[in-house]
Amino acid sequence: MPLIPVTDPDDPCLAPYRAVRERDVVGHGERFVAEGEVVLRLLVEGGRGAGPRFTTESALIAEARVAALSELLSALPGHVPVYVAGREVMDAVVGFPIHRGVLAIGRRPAPETAAGLLARLPERALVVALSGVSNHDNVGGIFRNAAAFGADAVLLDGACCDPLYRKAIRVSVGASLVLPFARGGSGAALLDALDGAGFDTLALSPAGAQELGDAALADRTALLLGAEGPGLSADLMARATTVRIAMAGGFDSLNVATTSGIALYAATRSRLTGA
Amino acid sequence: MPLIPVTDPDDPCLAPYRAVRERDVVGHGERFVAEGEVVLRLLVEGGRGAGPRFTTESALIAEARVAALSELLSALPGHVPVYVAGREVMDAVVGFPIHRGVLAIGRRPAPETAAGLLARLPERALVVALSGVSNHDNVGGIFRNAAAFGADAVLLDGACCDPLYRKAIRVSVGASLVLPFARGGSGAALLDALDGAGFDTLALSPAGAQELGDAALADRTALLLGAEGPGLSADLMARATTVRIAMAGGFDSLNVATTSGIALYAATRSRLTGA
Repeated sequence: MPLIPVTDPDDPCLAPYRAVRERDVVGHGERFVAEGEVVLRLLVEGGRGAGPRFTTESALIAEARVAALSELLSALPGHVPVYVAGREVMDAVVGFPIHRGVLAIGRRPAPETAAGLLARLPERALVVALSGVSNHDNVGGIFRNAAAFGADAVLLDGACCDPLYRKAIRVSVGASLVLPFARGGSGAALLDALDGAGFDTLALSPAGAQELGDAALADRTALLLGAEGPGLSADLMARATTVRIAMAGGFDSLNVATTSGIALYAATRSRLTGA
Repeated sequence: MPLIPVTDPDDPCLAPYRAVRERDVVGHGERFVAEGEVVLRLLVEGGRGAGPRFTTESALIAEARVAALSELLSALPGHVPVYVAGREVMDAVVGFPIHRGVLAIGRRPAPETAAGLLARLPERALVVALSGVSNHDNVGGIFRNAAAFGADAVLLDGACCDPLYRKAIRVSVGASLVLPFARGGSGAALLDALDGAGFDTLALSPAGAQELGDAALADRTALLLGAEGPGLSADLMARATTVRIAMAGGFDSLNVATTSGIALYAATRSRLTGA
């Protein structure tokens, strides 16, 4: 791997790393920013038994971290530049303190449609579908849970935030780099794709008709979640089997990421025990 | 209720609201800061069928919000001052933009011991016990889940963060203002209190001996959780029934707040169905 020392914060080769937070707001285009060792490892090596899903364009590593990361960095293709900078140069480029000293730029492939993604899944599959979940922490948390319980994919409508937003990747502990996803279109189009691929959709809602743990699971099951507050639209609910999580009542409903964890637990346990 | 207009950011009556973030770091002593309408309602009115657990010392409300909040503010005891300020004065006092325009100062009573709290609980009780969970978001999320599933109390050892820290209250959606809790001492002392009160303790760990959903639940059950990363100490694990959440493997374990949600779901469902 070519280690390239950089001492000038204005070095043009570091342009993709410049003012990361400001660019988070407007998006990084085809590129995304990966932060931290665990995330970089999933970017470079892939996970869940599959190789990397994205191209790593470059890495920017704090001098003090290079030795400890040498094995991981040597797994990068030989042509990928690894920029090495002192902590002060790194912070000056990025615009805030990068405590972990590990950044990389990834490049996303051409986006896949929900229908295309679902067609690739096995006959027995579990997916998480999101409509209007725009909070980065929640999307990241849902990817983390989906990976932990072995879900096959995540579908997001166009009102959801980008799972490759820097903070969403970080909160997902890199799950959004290894779990296949498709994003775009309306919630209705997302249900069209699920219906077309033979998925039964369980829509999670405090107003669900049956208790989550009592719901029968088809071989191909989707767990559909909406944003906290507004929840799922009546149109989407009408097209799905609605399920609720039994709660104490008299208190605010659950956070949507927590809800995804409980639904994934119940769905995978139901399959394991045949209950 | 006495509405007291304030136009000078240096007005001494607003001292408890000054530089809230800096004071978060060192603590507010006997006082704590409640933020937002939902949280203020739980502070003033209580929840879960019980009255308020804390004394409200004062409130600071943005002029633009007073009319909409009049019913809630009139529920305050007559002697509690409600300061009313323009948004700019409010932001200047607090030190950052208070978008919701609703703050209040609460006062905590003398702390209760874990043993004292457990002695007050019904014969059939579910509590959440935390050891070393120092992240405010996680403690707030755990309180939210505990309230949602109707847990009776939360116990925290001294290495956990304060549930009345401003951000923990906010993330808990006010649950830490309505759910009884005791905090302090070692994890071992916490297990002593649980043992002494006849509680069976289920310790959640990826290395747990049995699957969560297979665990039998005693009338008095505690769910014990440790911090992400280090997890529970071997000493505490050895004194409890250890349970794991079946996961896909090959991926990072769950966030501790999500774990609490799944454990509470499994425990309360098991009781409902007698499974």
